[in-house]
Amino acid sequence: MKLWGGRFSEDQSDLMKQFNDSFRFDKRLYAVDIQGSLVYAEALHLIGLITSAERDSIQKGLEKIEAEFDAGQFQAKASDEDIHTAVERRLSELIGEAAGKLHTGRSRNDQVAVDLRLYVMGEIGQTISLLEALQHKIVTKAEAHIDVLMPGFTHLQPAQPILFSHWLMSFFWMFERDKARLNDALARTAVSPLGSGALAGNPFPIDRAKIAEELGMASVSMNSLDAVSDRDFIAEFLFALSLIAVHISHFAEDIVLFSNPAFNYLQIGQAYSTGSSLMPQKRNPDSMELARAKTGRIISALVNMLIVLKGLPSTYNKDLQEDKEALFDSVDNLTLTLSVVAAVVDSLVVFPEKMLAHLNEAMLATDLADYLVARGVPFREAHHKVGEVIRYAEENNAPLSEIPLPALKSIAPQFEEDIQEVFNFTQAICKKDGVGGTAPQALKRQIEVAKEKLGSK
Amino acid sequence: MKLWGGRFSEDQSDLMKQFNDSFRFDKRLYAVDIQGSLVYAEALHLIGLITSAERDSIQKGLEKIEAEFDAGQFQAKASDEDIHTAVERRLSELIGEAAGKLHTGRSRNDQVAVDLRLYVMGEIGQTISLLEALQHKIVTKAEAHIDVLMPGFTHLQPAQPILFSHWLMSFFWMFERDKARLNDALARTAVSPLGSGALAGNPFPIDRAKIAEELGMASVSMNSLDAVSDRDFIAEFLFALSLIAVHISHFAEDIVLFSNPAFNYLQIGQAYSTGSSLMPQKRNPDSMELARAKTGRIISALVNMLIVLKGLPSTYNKDLQEDKEALFDSVDNLTLTLSVVAAVVDSLVVFPEKMLAHLNEAMLATDLADYLVARGVPFREAHHKVGEVIRYAEENNAPLSEIPLPALKSIAPQFEEDIQEVFNFTQAICKKDGVGGTAPQALKRQIEVAKEKLGSK
Amino acid sequence: MKLWGGRFSEDQSDLMKQFNDSFRFDKRLYAVDIQGSLVYAEALHLIGLITSAERDSIQKGLEKIEAEFDAGQFQAKASDEDIHTAVERRLSELIGEAAGKLHTGRSRNDQVAVDLRLYVMGEIGQTISLLEALQHKIVTKAEAHIDVLMPGFTHLQPAQPILFSHWLMSFFWMFERDKARLNDALARTAVSPLGSGALAGNPFPIDRAKIAEELGMASVSMNSLDAVSDRDFIAEFLFALSLIAVHISHFAEDIVLFSNPAFNYLQIGQAYSTGSSLMPQKRNPDSMELARAKTGRIISALVNMLIVLKGLPSTYNKDLQEDKEALFDSVDNLTLTLSVVAAVVDSLVVFPEKMLAHLNEAMLATDLADYLVARGVPFREAHHKVGEVIRYAEENNAPLSEIPLPALKSIAPQFEEDIQEVFNFTQAICKKDGVGGTAPQALKRQIEVAKEKLGSK
Amino acid sequence: MKLWGGRFSEDQSDLMKQFNDSFRFDKRLYAVDIQGSLVYAEALHLIGLITSAERDSIQKGLEKIEAEFDAGQFQAKASDEDIHTAVERRLSELIGEAAGKLHTGRSRNDQVAVDLRLYVMGEIGQTISLLEALQHKIVTKAEAHIDVLMPGFTHLQPAQPILFSHWLMSFFWMFERDKARLNDALARTAVSPLGSGALAGNPFPIDRAKIAEELGMASVSMNSLDAVSDRDFIAEFLFALSLIAVHISHFAEDIVLFSNPAFNYLQIGQAYSTGSSLMPQKRNPDSMELARAKTGRIISALVNMLIVLKGLPSTYNKDLQEDKEALFDSVDNLTLTLSVVAAVVDSLVVFPEKMLAHLNEAMLATDLADYLVARGVPFREAHHKVGEVIRYAEENNAPLSEIPLPALKSIAPQFEEDIQEVFNFTQAICKKDGVGGTAPQALKRQIEVAKEKLGSK
Repeated sequence: MKLWGGRFSEDQSDLMKQFNDSFRFDKRLYAVDIQGSLVYAEALHLIGLITSAERDSIQKGLEKIEAEFDAGQFQAKASDEDIHTAVERRLSELIGEAAGKLHTGRSRNDQVAVDLRLYVMGEIGQTISLLEALQHKIVTKAEAHIDVLMPGFTHLQPAQPILFSHWLMSFFWMFERDKARLNDALARTAVSPLGSGALAGNPFPIDRAKIAEELGMASVSMNSLDAVSDRDFIAEFLFALSLIAVHISHFAEDIVLFSNPAFNYLQIGQAYSTGSSLMPQKRNPDSMELARAKTGRIISALVNMLIVLKGLPSTYNKDLQEDKEALFDSVDNLTLTLSVVAAVVDSLVVFPEKMLAHLNEAMLATDLADYLVARGVPFREAHHKVGEVIRYAEENNAPLSEIPLPALKSIAPQFEEDIQEVFNFTQAICKKDGVGGTAPQALKRQIEVAKEKLGSK
Repeated sequence: MKLWGGRFSEDQSDLMKQFNDSFRFDKRLYAVDIQGSLVYAEALHLIGLITSAERDSIQKGLEKIEAEFDAGQFQAKASDEDIHTAVERRLSELIGEAAGKLHTGRSRNDQVAVDLRLYVMGEIGQTISLLEALQHKIVTKAEAHIDVLMPGFTHLQPAQPILFSHWLMSFFWMFERDKARLNDALARTAVSPLGSGALAGNPFPIDRAKIAEELGMASVSMNSLDAVSDRDFIAEFLFALSLIAVHISHFAEDIVLFSNPAFNYLQIGQAYSTGSSLMPQKRNPDSMELARAKTGRIISALVNMLIVLKGLPSTYNKDLQEDKEALFDSVDNLTLTLSVVAAVVDSLVVFPEKMLAHLNEAMLATDLADYLVARGVPFREAHHKVGEVIRYAEENNAPLSEIPLPALKSIAPQFEEDIQEVFNFTQAICKKDGVGGTAPQALKRQIEVAKEKLGSK
Repeated sequence: MKLWGGRFSEDQSDLMKQFNDSFRFDKRLYAVDIQGSLVYAEALHLIGLITSAERDSIQKGLEKIEAEFDAGQFQAKASDEDIHTAVERRLSELIGEAAGKLHTGRSRNDQVAVDLRLYVMGEIGQTISLLEALQHKIVTKAEAHIDVLMPGFTHLQPAQPILFSHWLMSFFWMFERDKARLNDALARTAVSPLGSGALAGNPFPIDRAKIAEELGMASVSMNSLDAVSDRDFIAEFLFALSLIAVHISHFAEDIVLFSNPAFNYLQIGQAYSTGSSLMPQKRNPDSMELARAKTGRIISALVNMLIVLKGLPSTYNKDLQEDKEALFDSVDNLTLTLSVVAAVVDSLVVFPEKMLAHLNEAMLATDLADYLVARGVPFREAHHKVGEVIRYAEENNAPLSEIPLPALKSIAPQFEEDIQEVFNFTQAICKKDGVGGTAPQALKRQIEVAKEKLGSK
Repeated sequence: MKLWGGRFSEDQSDLMKQFNDSFRFDKRLYAVDIQGSLVYAEALHLIGLITSAERDSIQKGLEKIEAEFDAGQFQAKASDEDIHTAVERRLSELIGEAAGKLHTGRSRNDQVAVDLRLYVMGEIGQTISLLEALQHKIVTKAEAHIDVLMPGFTHLQPAQPILFSHWLMSFFWMFERDKARLNDALARTAVSPLGSGALAGNPFPIDRAKIAEELGMASVSMNSLDAVSDRDFIAEFLFALSLIAVHISHFAEDIVLFSNPAFNYLQIGQAYSTGSSLMPQKRNPDSMELARAKTGRIISALVNMLIVLKGLPSTYNKDLQEDKEALFDSVDNLTLTLSVVAAVVDSLVVFPEKMLAHLNEAMLATDLADYLVARGVPFREAHHKVGEVIRYAEENNAPLSEIPLPALKSIAPQFEEDIQEVFNFTQAICKKDGVGGTAPQALKRQIEVAKEKLGSK
């Protein structure tokens, strides 16, 4: 059974069926398709287009079909070109003629738009949950190691001492932004296109607002031509996923680096590592490398969607069928990646002594400059003076703290004996105690706020 | 003057200067850079790090520098590696030693982050204004032609009759979503990173919340490591621009099509057309072709930003300097494109008789099916019956309305004389009078809501 | 059985297995994996690392495994993390200890690189064949309609008359370039990395050149570090596919346009069209819309590969496992698309009278200018004069050929009675008889050369 | 002066001029535009369309214009919408009426296609030269440090010892492939479209083959419709640049890593480093970070071009004007980046003792397995045994070489006293002496071949 074809005298070629049919991938939409049809049947009943008996029959039929899909027992037929056709075909087998009434005033164009929106609404919720689970792991691990010092890098060069917990918490806020973006996207996804027909609207007086409400959607679309072709919500969801993937790639890069024995700041669990087929000693952070690489896949799904949309004429074009596979693939991959990253955070073993060993006095150069500032030297001049101190230390192969005071004074007379007090990593960290700073006190407040965000204080 | 270099014994190569220096493009940030410095000077004063005299001197100096830039009279020097260096160097020339105090506790890392956020905040506002101006033109043009009928297409094949105003208004809602996305992006942009230092936070007790307020920002960043490297707001802005560009590409594609003499539904103003160097008769819709093509540029700027970010380790890396040129280029191009599109909408001349001539009875096939539905035939069956009617008409080369009733009845006995009443395009349109439908009444309400959105009822 | 793991005390988590294992998609490489192993077994035998009995045993075992895969009867196990592991595990079951010798000196890193190269070599050949099949259809259809006139457009505005066969043949040359690109890519793909080990080379004196020869590869890689991580050949293949997809998108766009009733220049076979679930009259060119949309998928696979590679450190990183799925997906989709496009070309029905009806005299404006040029007017001036003629015709609503001679002479005195001879579309076409021109004679030569390229003269 | 406009009654708007005009960026094509015109003037003369006096006059005029551009003294006018218009306008000022004859039979469509091809031909040559210069630096530096040992990584984990020269030379071969790709692209770029007119061909019998020869092009295009819209050569060039950028990103990533003090394997020259505005001690490898980031820009230029092309109808569309800016930007940036990378290679200071210090015995695990293989243990079993050895060493916190023989024998009885001989990094390296291996002998041969490739033996 095709949903169309009365006007055709010739069959589709097998090649065309293979090219055109989408059931093999859009069958995953069965639950949302059935959800939409249940609501639509009720809407048709409310305006008298189907009787209550027909509505009940449709409802029972659809529920049975859903149960068949749930149980993996749905029997597809070669003619099932997509999930909508498959469900309608099966419904017709189960309940007969009444099935044919369900499409009254509805087109696959508004039907698939509803299905996709319901699907994305669900996946937004799922992604937010996974992000929160990951954030919980981050907070827990950060708290457990709140006072561990480590070198902070910029340009991957030693910059200033920071807390390990500050480093780990930095990812919390990236994911917090991601959740906000997803929530914003949700508002634009939860808009019901049902009632837009193929393109021009529905000629029957169905109650679009009520339909939207039943579907858990916040509003209805305002223009049917736009509604049947709007895929912005998919692009927006894929963009939100892309930034999540980018954030994960930063985390993965850090983990891969810090797992190298030259650093050895931390180690991920063996359960998330793999070995080598040739080199027996290897323990590779494969999970994090794969997580980093997934960025390419997610971003390219976004690019795919945008290219598909580019330059299309108004309303529905078949090009839009290419909106699904990359979306599904992205969801599957990012969902799995988020779970893996959360487990990896949980599995992290931290080696504070290695981190401490990599702190060196040059990382206190800014503190030296601040010392001069406190003694009246303008910062820019102080910076230059300390630059000379650094050069002196390098040329004399001496730690900063061992430069004789006279040598220091010859660079800047404001240096005094008490300069030795500057050479204290903990003190350097403690000074940065404003909001967002790396001081232990600031970290406690940061974690406090984070927990509030998670509603788990 | 460099902001650094005390520790270097060797000069940068000229090649490196050319590669590294960003003044040639980041000078466009001068106003926001100065805005940030004015606020920071005040913040330093409030905690006693600079005197009120110094603060005043800095303020006057910065204002003079802004005036020089405004007037195009700022004299750059070879040593001005970026806008921050240039401003500090010039300030030093103007006010001497106090200039060197402005960088106390501040790094270019948090400074450039503030600058970019202020810049993007401004451009979000500007883009929203341009979108609203375009929406105004759309509403005005739609109202002026509210009752014009035209063929609606799906798959670029005739589908159902619609109103020209419905077609035009479909773009209104795309741009409305774009504005919502921009507003959401604004909330994540207006977050002050000032006080994050190079990466670890600011060791002086500056009032970060007050600084944010003075900058017109809604909140402060919560983690300094994240704050100095967060470029999400740029990616998010570029994504919002990308969807705007995609929407414009749909509009442009339609205009290019409908300007072809085979359609000749409308014509854009000569002022937005061009001719040919070889073919004297040509009048080409170049503005719309260029508008369509800009999609590539805008999307690719987003791709650029995402690729730059992919796989970077934590905190600031110099890679982030590549965040600006594509951003500026996208803003320049999209701003101009939006202005052009608005002017083109304004210039549109509509040819209703050509649109009407392209309506044909087959576009009422769904109405025929609905006729059968009203007579008790389930829609799916009615659809098949009408398919046979269409095939009969094609095989007999007859318009639908001229098929003899007996022939119709042999396909579906429910057809009666009154089937002739279905062949009425206006009536077909009027039936779709629900929210978002193409009926004139629905259009009036649609335009009403649109005007409310624009606050111009 | 894992190929590694002696040093691990803890099992991989199920989550990690799901994330890490690639058998579900890389099993498609079984034939090339076995081909590589057969050649490697022989190479190990030649240097005495395995006996001829062992070599024979390995060979028989591998052949049996290939037969199992071919027949869809290979029994995968949960421990089969990838195709290499699966084959080695099965080989071990079949032949015992000798299986364990096959990995001597070989790593999965050089093994997978060989497999992928063999796979891409095969797919390059397959793509070239499909392109040639498509080119054959183009040539046949062009020859069958060689003299049909149609309007040529630039900017989608009528420009000059051309031949339909010229239009169709324009795609021949795009695909000809695509084949050349694929052939160039082949040369860089057919390079054997086998013998590179995990990264540093093979410690046993295997004959790399002989291995390459046996694999049908033209040369051997020159640096083992590069060889195990080089995925350029995949990116290059995906780029070649991307341009094919772009070319198809042009063809599809033209077909979709020309199938619209406003043009009705041609129609694709019903077998490659589809109908509507709501509108019984619809006959949509879905195959061409989908073909157009596939561009997004193919280009994004290229983007995916480039992003995965971006910023990786030297040699093998697990990120490279993300090289396969997008590659396979692109091959599957482009292969199918090429078959569909070829069938659609074959199915094209052409309506010459509709094309002819769209020719109008303004499309001869350049010929008018050439007329003046022949009478001594510099082209640029002639162009302006004819522009005025066009404007006169528009303002007087007259065809060019009906403008009175005095009116013409008042614009340019060089116009004479014989100007009427210019108004001849066939003649206008015949004049462009140089190489690549649209004259029938030029088309015959163009098709002649095309057939030579196809080797089917 | 416009090249068109006789038929227009209304002026272009200023907005449209700003949007449409390309002179500000395409003026860089002046030399190739003039080169094309010189050849075309000669071609027109050969068929008698212009006299030799006119040809000479045009030639002199064009040479003067080129000189004006060369000297930066060309005076642009507001009406110069593009470089072609500007040159023709100026030529008209200089030589009068004859200038108007130059466009006979030629359109801007084939003119700009020629210009771009000549430009890309030049830039391909330039890029190849820069790659060769870089390869020279690589070979020189590799030779200077040919015997330096360093750890080889896979998954950024220690894998096997390699030579530093092997690492450096790995980039040589990436760039060698890049050159091959550029050369292949050159063959498809050096195809003359001149004589294709606006779309349909040239009505005058110009000698296209001779024109091509004069332009240094290998062949002529075979279909005018294709020729005026073919931008494949730009996409292909941008793809070749993209892979170069990817290769550079690997190099940059390695350099940034190895410059971190945790490694400190090498240091780039101060001349290619920068400092920090806040932290006086910093010496950042900015040049390499920027080089890494440029990948985003170059890849996105390719994406831009592909998106612009996607879905365009046949022949010239104004969208194609968007082919230039991203191309120019990519050329400028990649050219500069290649120069910087070459200089950085030259400036590299290597610290062999740091590399040596990071070699550890576990990196010889594969050699231990090979030891067992030599004693008859199948490799896969040997691999597992050595895995157990590694685990024993870790659990006992002992170097491999200090595990008592009895302990080893309890794992694999084949272990004997001579196992100590395996613990020799140099020997491990020397064993990999096949083609492409890391042995010093293999490196010498590798460098030999590299020099032959460079023709500088």
